[in-house]
Amino acid sequence: MSLDDSGYSGLVLDKLSTSNIKFGDTILVKINEEEYIGVLMPRSQVGSDQFHLVLKLESGYNIGIKLNQDTQVRKIKTGKKKQTVSTEKRPVTKDLPIASILSTGGTIASKVDYQTGAVNPALSAQDLYDTVPELGNYAIVRAKVIMSILSENIRPNDWTKIARSVAAEIKAGSDGVVIAHGTDTLGFTAAALSFALQDLPVPVVLVGSQRSSDRPSSDAAMNLIGAINLATRADAADVFVLMHAETSDSYLHAHLGTRTRKLHTSRRDAFQSVNSYPFYRVSGENVLELCSPLRRRNTERKLNLKPKFEEKVALVKTNPSIEASLIDLFVEIGYKGILIEGTGLGHAPDRLQPSIKKAIDAGIIIAMSSQCLFGRINMNVYRSGVELLDIGVIPCEDMFPETALVKLMWVLANSKDQDSAKHLFSKPLAGEIDMRSEESEYVKSLGGH
Amino acid sequence: MSLDDSGYSGLVLDKLSTSNIKFGDTILVKINEEEYIGVLMPRSQVGSDQFHLVLKLESGYNIGIKLNQDTQVRKIKTGKKKQTVSTEKRPVTKDLPIASILSTGGTIASKVDYQTGAVNPALSAQDLYDTVPELGNYAIVRAKVIMSILSENIRPNDWTKIARSVAAEIKAGSDGVVIAHGTDTLGFTAAALSFALQDLPVPVVLVGSQRSSDRPSSDAAMNLIGAINLATRADAADVFVLMHAETSDSYLHAHLGTRTRKLHTSRRDAFQSVNSYPFYRVSGENVLELCSPLRRRNTERKLNLKPKFEEKVALVKTNPSIEASLIDLFVEIGYKGILIEGTGLGHAPDRLQPSIKKAIDAGIIIAMSSQCLFGRINMNVYRSGVELLDIGVIPCEDMFPETALVKLMWVLANSKDQDSAKHLFSKPLAGEIDMRSEESEYVKSLGGH
Repeated sequence: MSLDDSGYSGLVLDKLSTSNIKFGDTILVKINEEEYIGVLMPRSQVGSDQFHLVLKLESGYNIGIKLNQDTQVRKIKTGKKKQTVSTEKRPVTKDLPIASILSTGGTIASKVDYQTGAVNPALSAQDLYDTVPELGNYAIVRAKVIMSILSENIRPNDWTKIARSVAAEIKAGSDGVVIAHGTDTLGFTAAALSFALQDLPVPVVLVGSQRSSDRPSSDAAMNLIGAINLATRADAADVFVLMHAETSDSYLHAHLGTRTRKLHTSRRDAFQSVNSYPFYRVSGENVLELCSPLRRRNTERKLNLKPKFEEKVALVKTNPSIEASLIDLFVEIGYKGILIEGTGLGHAPDRLQPSIKKAIDAGIIIAMSSQCLFGRINMNVYRSGVELLDIGVIPCEDMFPETALVKLMWVLANSKDQDSAKHLFSKPLAGEIDMRSEESEYVKSLGGH
Repeated sequence: MSLDDSGYSGLVLDKLSTSNIKFGDTILVKINEEEYIGVLMPRSQVGSDQFHLVLKLESGYNIGIKLNQDTQVRKIKTGKKKQTVSTEKRPVTKDLPIASILSTGGTIASKVDYQTGAVNPALSAQDLYDTVPELGNYAIVRAKVIMSILSENIRPNDWTKIARSVAAEIKAGSDGVVIAHGTDTLGFTAAALSFALQDLPVPVVLVGSQRSSDRPSSDAAMNLIGAINLATRADAADVFVLMHAETSDSYLHAHLGTRTRKLHTSRRDAFQSVNSYPFYRVSGENVLELCSPLRRRNTERKLNLKPKFEEKVALVKTNPSIEASLIDLFVEIGYKGILIEGTGLGHAPDRLQPSIKKAIDAGIIIAMSSQCLFGRINMNVYRSGVELLDIGVIPCEDMFPETALVKLMWVLANSKDQDSAKHLFSKPLAGEIDMRSEESEYVKSLGGH
């Protein structure tokens, strides 16, 4: 990339050109008494002015520096020319499997806005592929941008769109589909696809990144390479989430789509299996099966696409200040289902009972999960649980709240009446319910004493 | 206890008396072709009929059996007479510290209802003490029932009542206060007391039980003994939660009141420190300090009681189907604060932004926590976080949602205006906020691969 393409202009471009500095060079910038050393970064943001340049510091962080006429800029080291291998130029090796990458947005597909310092979803799937040229060693990659959304904004109708895109890729002969997705609601989308994509013939792998790809600590490349390998090599046909298993780059874990939860705001190993174990350990092209998948790969199997979700389902988390009128409200404004995130084994304050009964009598499905997240619902132990069961509340067994919410949305859109919806909700469909007791599948504080 | 006191009457009492069977004896009951062997349990439930008796089976579970005229009942083994040591009879040893036990209800203070099989809060604090006579070896115990509530029903005004009772015990010279509490909302109450009891002179220890005391696997006795020892022996003056550290009876962990969360529905080690470490390891009278407490024991220090909480604070957990009208509703019905349980580093769907802005403009305090539970809020990384900060949303730093909710209730009731409430909310008061980065304080799946 030449300097002209790097987004710089005016004063900054003059200073850089004078010193024969190119994008990628390590430079020293001296303003008054302050000195900054770092690698010159491109400035691709629309509306960038002619006074700021962007340096990547040794710490990995980017800073914007405002230059003036007196600022000294000096080259310290010439940058290495980056090798960019494009898809088109690489010879197609006949033996390689075909992988699809569908990009939806999020950090794994994002660029830093050097003006605000914030990260925006921007990179295309092709960019992803260009960024990680090694992908070409493992598969023939078909890359497609299907949306560009920060994952906190993803809604049930986006799940429908993603499910349909996956179905199209499979129909076109893909050996495995990778979905690049923001991490915030990646678990919700994974659960949604697990229900929407019945009888999958090949694996579907959701992958994200906790650190954007312009940071040295980024997990984007390793996660993406692992996802391509899991999607094309695993003898499975389930929906998985693949992310770092540890903070180091040791290996990745593939968790079942209905059993994965983001449990940490920033760590690279934020995703954990809840009431379940990781199914695969992945490192590059090494794909080690840890648990038998629900379904083996079989390209003869015909995908049964059920992509619809009922949006009018509420999540109600109980707490000491909750009022019964909240339940009444959801009934009044036409909700079809309520997923209660109760306490302990599946309890809600007694004061909610009359409203819960009224809602169920009005034809709304109410299911009970636990804010503990880990462990099984058992409403037979305490009086308040027994009473809720009597009213008609459905226990979520060992489903944690987010998966139970998505499942309730899905069964309401895919059942002919309320009875069959209730029946479908309690039936294991995609590994989300297990009737075994699972006391050992839990977490423990790390670094404890 | 004689049979007459055991709640049996009519047919059942006749059959038992005829065979000279007493409460505690192992008996065989034969109805038609079925035989049951177990220990005869008392039948103290109000409204019990004259046809059922209760056996504790070898599995530890109790069953009710309906007798008829032809039922055969036979004694197999005479039960051992239970030693009950009463407080009054034990000589007071002058060296022993004074501990208070305040009972609020929950499993640790519950009896099984042998008719429905469900557990109800019933035992008095005196019963607790009679059940675990070893307590007398460690402290002079003052036991008091202050309420009898399953903890899912505990409300902010109950926290006020508990805080006032603790203050009264401390004023009366207690060396440490133990609160027996249901586990469902024990974490909420622990956080509430951490804010309400400022400048504590002695420790306050919340303790619960995941298995009721009539089951052989009960954790009630060990937890209670540990709590009495932690409360009277630890050189600390903070609010702690003390529960099993492992599923076995190896030892207990004391977690800081503002940092404890129930993370499993049924395991005895359900309570874990979130974004923090356990402070003490306790086993009987062995109290080992693992971290320095916030404050050392000092009986000269004057307790500053601030027991009030604002009830009109809502918990809103974002999810893919959430609608902005939910925020509008809480504004309309007069809420003073909203704690958002957002995604990732502290994000909410963009579609909520106008309603959040309107609420803040109307004088409502809105704070942002993460449904990840572990890790720190950082709203400077992504555009949607930056925008929420600009609107005036307050980041919860490393407070998890439940503690943040309780703190918001507390600051709203203890500030003269909105600005001082906001200031107080962001200030560390009881170890609930730490400005250090804590990447290592996390959990990991157990039994993983």
